Amino acid sequence: MTPPASSLRIGIAGLGTVGGGVVKLLAAQAALIAARAGQPIVVTAVSARDRTRDRGFSVEGLNWHDNPVALAADPNVDVVVELIGGADGPAKDLAEAAIAAGKSFVTGNKALLAMHGAALAIAAEKAGLVIAYEAAVAGGIPVIKVLREGLAANQISRVAGILNGTCNYILTTMREEGRDFADVLAAAQELGYAEKPDPGLDVDGIDAAHKLAILAGLAFGVKIDFADLHIEGIRRISDLDISFAQELGYRIKLLGIAERTGAGISLRVHPAMVPLSRPLASVDGVFNAVQLEGDFSGPVFLRGRGAGEGPTASAVVADLIDIARGIKIPVWGQAASTLAPAVLTPMAAHEGAYFIRLMVTDQPGVLADVTAILRDHGISLESMLQHGRKPGEAVPIVLVTHETSEAEVGAALLRIATLPSVLEAPALIRIEP
Amino acid sequence: MTPPASSLRIGIAGLGTVGGGVVKLLAAQAALIAARAGQPIVVTAVSARDRTRDRGFSVEGLNWHDNPVALAADPNVDVVVELIGGADGPAKDLAEAAIAAGKSFVTGNKALLAMHGAALAIAAEKAGLVIAYEAAVAGGIPVIKVLREGLAANQISRVAGILNGTCNYILTTMREEGRDFADVLAAAQELGYAEKPDPGLDVDGIDAAHKLAILAGLAFGVKIDFADLHIEGIRRISDLDISFAQELGYRIKLLGIAERTGAGISLRVHPAMVPLSRPLASVDGVFNAVQLEGDFSGPVFLRGRGAGEGPTASAVVADLIDIARGIKIPVWGQAASTLAPAVLTPMAAHEGAYFIRLMVTDQPGVLADVTAILRDHGISLESMLQHGRKPGEAVPIVLVTHETSEAEVGAALLRIATLPSVLEAPALIRIEP
Repeated sequence: MTPPASSLRIGIAGLGTVGGGVVKLLAAQAALIAARAGQPIVVTAVSARDRTRDRGFSVEGLNWHDNPVALAADPNVDVVVELIGGADGPAKDLAEAAIAAGKSFVTGNKALLAMHGAALAIAAEKAGLVIAYEAAVAGGIPVIKVLREGLAANQISRVAGILNGTCNYILTTMREEGRDFADVLAAAQELGYAEKPDPGLDVDGIDAAHKLAILAGLAFGVKIDFADLHIEGIRRISDLDISFAQELGYRIKLLGIAERTGAGISLRVHPAMVPLSRPLASVDGVFNAVQLEGDFSGPVFLRGRGAGEGPTASAVVADLIDIARGIKIPVWGQAASTLAPAVLTPMAAHEGAYFIRLMVTDQPGVLADVTAILRDHGISLESMLQHGRKPGEAVPIVLVTHETSEAEVGAALLRIATLPSVLEAPALIRIEP
Repeated sequence: MTPPASSLRIGIAGLGTVGGGVVKLLAAQAALIAARAGQPIVVTAVSARDRTRDRGFSVEGLNWHDNPVALAADPNVDVVVELIGGADGPAKDLAEAAIAAGKSFVTGNKALLAMHGAALAIAAEKAGLVIAYEAAVAGGIPVIKVLREGLAANQISRVAGILNGTCNYILTTMREEGRDFADVLAAAQELGYAEKPDPGLDVDGIDAAHKLAILAGLAFGVKIDFADLHIEGIRRISDLDISFAQELGYRIKLLGIAERTGAGISLRVHPAMVPLSRPLASVDGVFNAVQLEGDFSGPVFLRGRGAGEGPTASAVVADLIDIARGIKIPVWGQAASTLAPAVLTPMAAHEGAYFIRLMVTDQPGVLADVTAILRDHGISLESMLQHGRKPGEAVPIVLVTHETSEAEVGAALLRIATLPSVLEAPALIRIEP
């Protein structure tokens, strides 16, 4: 296909939901995009597994490549769009080939960016090329642009986000319908919201952690070793904890949090109790949201659809319009060669308030034993909940601590778990302001 | 002052809260900004009324201009920043002089942009210059960037925002403290949140309308005649309406709304009943927020500080960093010469649901008269509220309509107002989904 010489010519690797969405969006909004971008943006080449599959659009007239890496060498391609996924393999090969061929690279691949983003940025910047990745984090919410450009005048002290729609859908449904994790997960898998057979990338927090690593790299101008992140998923959240949260004025959300501490940067993904008064608490279902704290801007809160064909295609095409407009911004907001390795504070040094739930035999002396251990570790309580009395039976006791350290809480819980009246491993959920 | 040749040299007109904030921010974050912008950004020249006033920083070493327009001709100035305000007069003169002198122009002036933005853009684009105005709308929220770049792949169907922090503060305080408008306005004036002696720019909706006109121009790619906007302020909001709103599950907010209708574009600023479940409903105090609807992105919601030294300076400096990075985007997101005049739908053609409050003498037959008139105009009711009975005394009756047209509601209320048992002009507040 030979479009007008003044068009920006796109090669797309991966024609799944998002890749197909990009093709459809570029066709549907061709005139609008040409007016805004200053030139038409046209797909000239594609690569996918199956040429004959019905995708709702025709690939006739497009250069077809069985090997995605061949897109980089296609003389009719100015910009390579990678929507294959995976931190390594063809996605990484294609990124490197595109840069080597002198072509800018647009991706929605959070794993690739989280693992190899700093190295790819150095190569791209040496060659004067763009790597754009708005679609990698929070779908239709332009959080990369907000952080890298809109808040560029600020030192960012904290980024906290609901970054995985699958987890948020599961937690929301558990709360609204009083169902347990396994049940809702199975339903989410049927609906296509969670992967089958292994939903781990979502529910174990890995996907959210990839996105958090990207946001943190941008916010703090650092290179992050992904292996250093603290990552917990939502498998252990019980319906009991969800109803206690409600009673105490919290919502349980899987948060990705990046914040400056006295000693460095804390990077962590885990379920958190969020006070109902906070904007993040009322973000339900498949929606994503990010709260950013700038030293001059103050808090900036963004909310929108985190995934799906339309929102993700919107983000990919926004990057293409930027490129068509001639926008070149360092991949990580400053020259990649100047990124310092991140100094991460260990989770044991985390300070905060904690929600603790114990299942105990309802008998005299249990509470005295528990509170004595907490006292030994310098942990004071803000509140304590126990409903009704069932002498001799298992009952939940909920403790909410004042600010303390993760190390002390961990040590105290190890001891509490050994008490004969404590029947199962204590549940621990951090409270986030 | 002679900074390194590779710096971006800034001249600032107006050293009030925002101008002073920009000077302080550029000094405080100099290293960070140089790393992100690719070069230092330094203030070399200023203009203000009083050279000797203590502003918390020194103007020694800066070129001082008594006449702001002289900044445009200063050979040590690369970019002119206008923070004087006002649609005409020195602000407009300076904008024109800067463009004529071949210098990009950054402003926080919503009135200037709303009134003369299209004409200024044509001049700037002819000269290959930037006009940037992130600070003109919603302070620390980068909504201009989100709309013009982040959502550039979308047709925008609707923009709805809480765009004036003064009004939102007044409405929030009325609700939280059960006080009336005049009382809270006086307190807001003492706190410096509202102008003295004339708070009209804020409380009559003019400031919000300026911002709405800018957002609508960007969202729809049109030139807007500001005189065509429908603008109502908050002076007539009573504490009675605020408590009925609460009871019915709404919050009263001053909204600026721009939306595509079948016949054109509806642009209106007025108090609105917002369902508590909507993100805009829980934006309180001086915060601003904007809800954007893109056809591919879906809803995107932004919330942050709408005014004040830090947030507004953050927006001005983000624009300067964009310019230092070499970013050039058409002022209105597409070539200014291609902007079509907006076709606005008249308010009479508006369709929606309405909250109506009548003060009536509690006597038999009142409701029959009122509902007969509504029936004559084809208006059906979703609910009706009347508390207690006070025979012969004045009582409020609240009617919530199903969707109907502004013309029919207006005609019905004219007739209802003439009923002998209706004691004062009916209160009318539009319900926004």
